[in-house]
Amino acid sequence: MKQIEKYNVLELKLEDVDETVLTAECAVFEQKEKQVRVSAFRNRNKEYIVRFMPDRAGIWKYHISLAGKEIQGEFECTENTGDNHGRVVVHGYHFRYEDGERFIPFGTTAYAWIHQTEELRRQTIETLGRSPFNKIRMCVFPKSMPYNTNDPDCYPFEKKPDGTWDVFQPDPQFWEKLDQSIEMLMELGIEADLILFHPYDRWGFAELSQEDSLAYLEYCIARLSAYRNLWWSLANEYEMVYAKSIENWEEYGEMILRKDPYGHLRSVHNILDLFPKRRWLTHCSVQSSEIDRIPFWQQEFCLPVLIDECGYEGDLPYSWGSLPAFEMVHRFWQSVCRGGFCTHGETYHREDEVLWWSKGGKLHGQSAQRISFLKEILYSLPGEWQMPRYHGNNPNLDEEDEKAVREEQNFQKILSKTSRRTRENFCAYITPMKIEGEGYTLEYFGHFRPVYLDLKLRKDREYQAEIIDIWEMSRQSAADRLSGNTRVQLPGKEGIALLVTERP
Amino acid sequence: MKQIEKYNVLELKLEDVDETVLTAECAVFEQKEKQVRVSAFRNRNKEYIVRFMPDRAGIWKYHISLAGKEIQGEFECTENTGDNHGRVVVHGYHFRYEDGERFIPFGTTAYAWIHQTEELRRQTIETLGRSPFNKIRMCVFPKSMPYNTNDPDCYPFEKKPDGTWDVFQPDPQFWEKLDQSIEMLMELGIEADLILFHPYDRWGFAELSQEDSLAYLEYCIARLSAYRNLWWSLANEYEMVYAKSIENWEEYGEMILRKDPYGHLRSVHNILDLFPKRRWLTHCSVQSSEIDRIPFWQQEFCLPVLIDECGYEGDLPYSWGSLPAFEMVHRFWQSVCRGGFCTHGETYHREDEVLWWSKGGKLHGQSAQRISFLKEILYSLPGEWQMPRYHGNNPNLDEEDEKAVREEQNFQKILSKTSRRTRENFCAYITPMKIEGEGYTLEYFGHFRPVYLDLKLRKDREYQAEIIDIWEMSRQSAADRLSGNTRVQLPGKEGIALLVTERP
Repeated sequence: MKQIEKYNVLELKLEDVDETVLTAECAVFEQKEKQVRVSAFRNRNKEYIVRFMPDRAGIWKYHISLAGKEIQGEFECTENTGDNHGRVVVHGYHFRYEDGERFIPFGTTAYAWIHQTEELRRQTIETLGRSPFNKIRMCVFPKSMPYNTNDPDCYPFEKKPDGTWDVFQPDPQFWEKLDQSIEMLMELGIEADLILFHPYDRWGFAELSQEDSLAYLEYCIARLSAYRNLWWSLANEYEMVYAKSIENWEEYGEMILRKDPYGHLRSVHNILDLFPKRRWLTHCSVQSSEIDRIPFWQQEFCLPVLIDECGYEGDLPYSWGSLPAFEMVHRFWQSVCRGGFCTHGETYHREDEVLWWSKGGKLHGQSAQRISFLKEILYSLPGEWQMPRYHGNNPNLDEEDEKAVREEQNFQKILSKTSRRTRENFCAYITPMKIEGEGYTLEYFGHFRPVYLDLKLRKDREYQAEIIDIWEMSRQSAADRLSGNTRVQLPGKEGIALLVTERP
Repeated sequence: MKQIEKYNVLELKLEDVDETVLTAECAVFEQKEKQVRVSAFRNRNKEYIVRFMPDRAGIWKYHISLAGKEIQGEFECTENTGDNHGRVVVHGYHFRYEDGERFIPFGTTAYAWIHQTEELRRQTIETLGRSPFNKIRMCVFPKSMPYNTNDPDCYPFEKKPDGTWDVFQPDPQFWEKLDQSIEMLMELGIEADLILFHPYDRWGFAELSQEDSLAYLEYCIARLSAYRNLWWSLANEYEMVYAKSIENWEEYGEMILRKDPYGHLRSVHNILDLFPKRRWLTHCSVQSSEIDRIPFWQQEFCLPVLIDECGYEGDLPYSWGSLPAFEMVHRFWQSVCRGGFCTHGETYHREDEVLWWSKGGKLHGQSAQRISFLKEILYSLPGEWQMPRYHGNNPNLDEEDEKAVREEQNFQKILSKTSRRTRENFCAYITPMKIEGEGYTLEYFGHFRPVYLDLKLRKDREYQAEIIDIWEMSRQSAADRLSGNTRVQLPGKEGIALLVTERP
């Protein structure tokens, strides 16, 4: 009997099918009481494919019936091994793999990498393999904007005689390239955060009708859902896709919710305001440089927050593409220590116009290795962390001082009467960037550079403190045996974090 | 006949006056059709003083009548000379001296400097004399908070038998010290931005009754208004003075408007939101690190905007006192290139607790000399500048591209529907930090570090471009003869500005 590892792809091909639909919900996979209905998709004329990702070990049976053709069979799903942990799922304000293994997102961005030459694509994959990144933001459609003036070698659809796109005629060359791209990422353990629509277009993809968009989307679902490393990103900068309304986006979200049998992660990336809260959103995919707002978005959406765009390390004359490497690294630390996660991108001007952020290729910057350093630290900690609750209190308040407590109450009264914006800004201003988990706290000072910090530790425990330099990538013991109220000396420079862990 | 230079102080003393009021509106100064009514103030028992600052050259007559005592006389007011240019007044979104001479505010902060030892006060004055600063934020009342635990040698008032303050019994020792402090600043050409109330108090000054507060205020007006370098700052962090309501503050503002014969500048400094717009406010004295909001506050208040507190250069474990020197300098440039002005402060931890921001003394940081560099550049430019109008347009928009123009219109529609916060953030994000004046533009790139900039200059003029490094304090020619659409190469580092000037 055929064997498939859990979370891998079983692919079944139907040839000489007398049918022309793009997709057809014609396959059933069963194991004990569990039944999964899956769509076939047309790969080329008369050739249909069914893909399935089993999520339970044991014997599965399947039955496919399409245009008079019937296929039945069974296969054995074996336990997952090695780095295969299944889909990424939401876990509180964090993420995990389906099998419980930890997943901390460290994203990067190469919007149009699949639309470049084979040589460049190979280079991108090599670079990713050596990088810390475990998620990549990438578009199905090609990209048109400065530094993106080349045309791709193939497009998702054939054209009609009138020159417009015929979404019912997918070009197999394109889709096989996309399949392979996602598969290569899967082998590297990288999540493909696949952007389904975006505004930077000169070919007409941003202006497909709603009917065509839904057909294309259904095709994506039928073809790509079985890849465990797939995330659905409905849009890059959804507001800028002027041909689409909120209702259009809602229809996409609902369709994916209904038709993707596996429940891959679903988000919408914004340019101005976050996409409104909807039942099918699994996390916030945020464009913003206001990273301090993460805890407020968490509260508002009750979802994990990924800062998927906060500027790119680079030197372009655009505010979005001109961050110093230090600032890129800082924003990762800031995101994490505000309870969220961050995504990288790189835009160094090059005469050949091969900028990582869009075309992939090589990384030329200085942030990636430092993001790797952060990744190692976070994975070395024992599990997920929380933010200390945002209370807007003065963290330096001495609770034994009655007058100070009364004044603090007065201040809270005033704060409660101001606008949300003011409250958020102020709370972020006075609340340390700090996370705490089982037996540890990690506080990051960002651009501030205190020469000391007063800690309030339990008197009946012992702690050790370690000074982390995010740029030098160094870790250095600050104190070995700390207890109660105590002062730790700090180096007084930017980019310092303090990791305090309980001694066993 | 006695001679007094215009904008200097004429002081007249009345002794053995059989009166006990704190102040009395009992003096009239006349020149031609102009008549100025001035109050006498009690300096010590039975001794009253009248101070007057003439603002017109020529012969002035005066008449004082108090408790049966009459004084009459005249003096000649001569033209102002040297660095004496009179009061600072509002001039659009800028400031000027009363006589038309330019004044660009470069403030610093030493809240409690007058409450320190004479030796320390002398040191503060020496430091100021060597500094670029032409305005200082300082409190009448002493200050209580970390690093401010010492008591002053004298207080503004005597105490009542019950231990509370008797505002009707001013302590001459204190007020003469304050007079001298303001006079020493005047000699250095430094504006005394005098903070009348503040919350950081352990002596009871923040909890004076409204009646006592008004008496104290009237005394300040009578005693101090004749100093040309005086600015009225009603409060530091007005919301935190819990004993006072908005109506209380309004009463102070109205009283100063009515009783200060010269119309010195009036502001209120906030902690959360700017004090609401009132007819007696002459400018916005802002606490905020959101410097990008300057143009929006200008629009809202139709007043000049001073970022009087945006954090201090230092290394304390408080977010307000831990800025890197570069960031302090950056915020000055950012403020100016967003159409406003900025104020400095310094909080380096010292075991002796003499931190410039409160006690004065010496400057230990690296920002002051760089603020001086900015000051030289701005004074070398021919007069006031404007911000290019905030339109929220993509500045890279090619107006000959019809599709791009249509999409920009679409985007404006979307932007107009978002919240004020979103609009402001987005406009600030895409609008360059840039000012333009007669024959020049100055663009500052802040933390961004473009390697080139495309300029759209007039084709019928010639321009030269200079690269300014705000940290290295260097100015370097980038190009000598520029015209039309042209590209300028930039160094690709943080803290760079480009000054483009029209060739004669």
